[in-house]
Amino acid sequence: MLNVYFAAGARMWPRYQAPLAQALAAAGVEAVVTEAAPADPAAVDYLIVANGGVVSDFAPFTGAKAVLNLWAGVEKLVGNDTLTQPLCRMVDPAMTESMVEYVTGHVLRHHLGLDRHILNADAVWMPETAPGPARARSVTVLGLGELGSACARMLAALNFRVTGWSRTPKSLPGIRCLSGDAGLAQALAEAQILVLLMPYTAETENLLNAERIASMPASAVVINPGRGPLIDDAALLAALDSGHLSNATLDVFRVEPLPADHAFWAHPKVTVTPHIAAETYPETAAVVVAENIRRAEVGEPLMYLVDRSRGY
Amino acid sequence: MLNVYFAAGARMWPRYQAPLAQALAAAGVEAVVTEAAPADPAAVDYLIVANGGVVSDFAPFTGAKAVLNLWAGVEKLVGNDTLTQPLCRMVDPAMTESMVEYVTGHVLRHHLGLDRHILNADAVWMPETAPGPARARSVTVLGLGELGSACARMLAALNFRVTGWSRTPKSLPGIRCLSGDAGLAQALAEAQILVLLMPYTAETENLLNAERIASMPASAVVINPGRGPLIDDAALLAALDSGHLSNATLDVFRVEPLPADHAFWAHPKVTVTPHIAAETYPETAAVVVAENIRRAEVGEPLMYLVDRSRGY
Repeated sequence: MLNVYFAAGARMWPRYQAPLAQALAAAGVEAVVTEAAPADPAAVDYLIVANGGVVSDFAPFTGAKAVLNLWAGVEKLVGNDTLTQPLCRMVDPAMTESMVEYVTGHVLRHHLGLDRHILNADAVWMPETAPGPARARSVTVLGLGELGSACARMLAALNFRVTGWSRTPKSLPGIRCLSGDAGLAQALAEAQILVLLMPYTAETENLLNAERIASMPASAVVINPGRGPLIDDAALLAALDSGHLSNATLDVFRVEPLPADHAFWAHPKVTVTPHIAAETYPETAAVVVAENIRRAEVGEPLMYLVDRSRGY
Repeated sequence: MLNVYFAAGARMWPRYQAPLAQALAAAGVEAVVTEAAPADPAAVDYLIVANGGVVSDFAPFTGAKAVLNLWAGVEKLVGNDTLTQPLCRMVDPAMTESMVEYVTGHVLRHHLGLDRHILNADAVWMPETAPGPARARSVTVLGLGELGSACARMLAALNFRVTGWSRTPKSLPGIRCLSGDAGLAQALAEAQILVLLMPYTAETENLLNAERIASMPASAVVINPGRGPLIDDAALLAALDSGHLSNATLDVFRVEPLPADHAFWAHPKVTVTPHIAAETYPETAAVVVAENIRRAEVGEPLMYLVDRSRGY
């Protein structure tokens, strides 16, 4: 009987308890999952965390075969020197679908100019506000991992001119894929709508800085459902104030919840959403966790293993 | 040399003149297209109209081999007894794409609850407003012609639970297709978001009446990019006021432009868009017109021929 320690926090436990028990049983794994801190950390076989959680020192878990994250991002874990066990990110098909819904919805919102119609009560009929076709709208997705690729594919299915950029070269049908520094410059230069879906690492911090924002087309829109620190907030606000950018739709922030006095809340060109773009669904995430435990027990390779050197 | 009379109106002529000349040449059709009223109507080989236009009496056009409409809707033409020539609707791939963008954008807007985030400036972080997955959201599309089918397919690709309804039985992969009166009742009973994409005929007028609105789920949303008269406006307003419907997003109206004093403009639960959901693009529509003239000249069947008995 395996010991699994649910260290993702008491708040998440009620939603995960039943799905985890069910998924483990379905995977043929005999395990007891407990939310209570273990009397003997060395007896824990697996830890479940949430890019952080209640454990900050992983050293006492000397028998742990893996640390399984419930979220896609791991930036709060990769820098933890006590975490020497194999660490897995979450790639949840339902989370990917949720991200595709959010990104597609906000890209279409900006393409179609929905805000004007939602806010308009001045009774003026303006058919000249028709948006033109998606075929004439360039959308750039930075980051072509699970989430970025899925979003790029859906936007291409809607006939947007999609450019995808990734650190290392990738190839996706129907999508112009660029990589490297020169590729990033080109991807930004054509980004009428920019979607940030990179992991947060030392290399990606402030990637969207004043210089790169200035290289984007006039009236461009930034959508960030990735990680807050990808953007230099002051540079973003300056570009919105100068009119160079027409809107920033932000789901993630350096500090969450976003403080009530933060400039983003009241800014007329900023849309704040409360980190809801990609929901992890307990039912589907539990299946991924259970499958990874099954794999570890029979010596198969773990899915979504984090590469500590690259940071995700 | 064929005589083609552009009777769609002087306002549209500047946008269509060059694309029509180019498309006819590309189709190998030798024709002169004129916007001026012809001295001899009997010498006109083809008329181009826009669900109406400058001709109300088609009888003098005794030599006309077809009347080619630039719009999808033909309700202002089918009842014209003088129009005995073959009449073709427009099915423009770009128009279909435009409709898919509009419908997908507004369905995602309502699914994601974007209005709250667009309007919110009260600095309250509410992650509990996450919308849940599209898999749990039922969308019903009434009308499964070119436009309705294309929208239903895209919504299914986004994992919405899509129900499609049509007058006669149809089958579309991934979409629950219903038909007939019993099918309509079922399709409405589950429509958390309802999209109207039927033609306007005697049978579809006021199809969405008080009784049918009452049969929809509480807090449902109606999106109408089809035709204004599909909805009983008074019943719609009553259901919005009572709270049974949470929003109506309307692109088409009984009178267009929508009069400035119409209740829809100021209603907080109504979004008015100025008949922009499906744009006809001259470049692609001209190709369809030219191809139909080519077909008629060589005796091939016309595309998108209107069935006068059913009205579209």
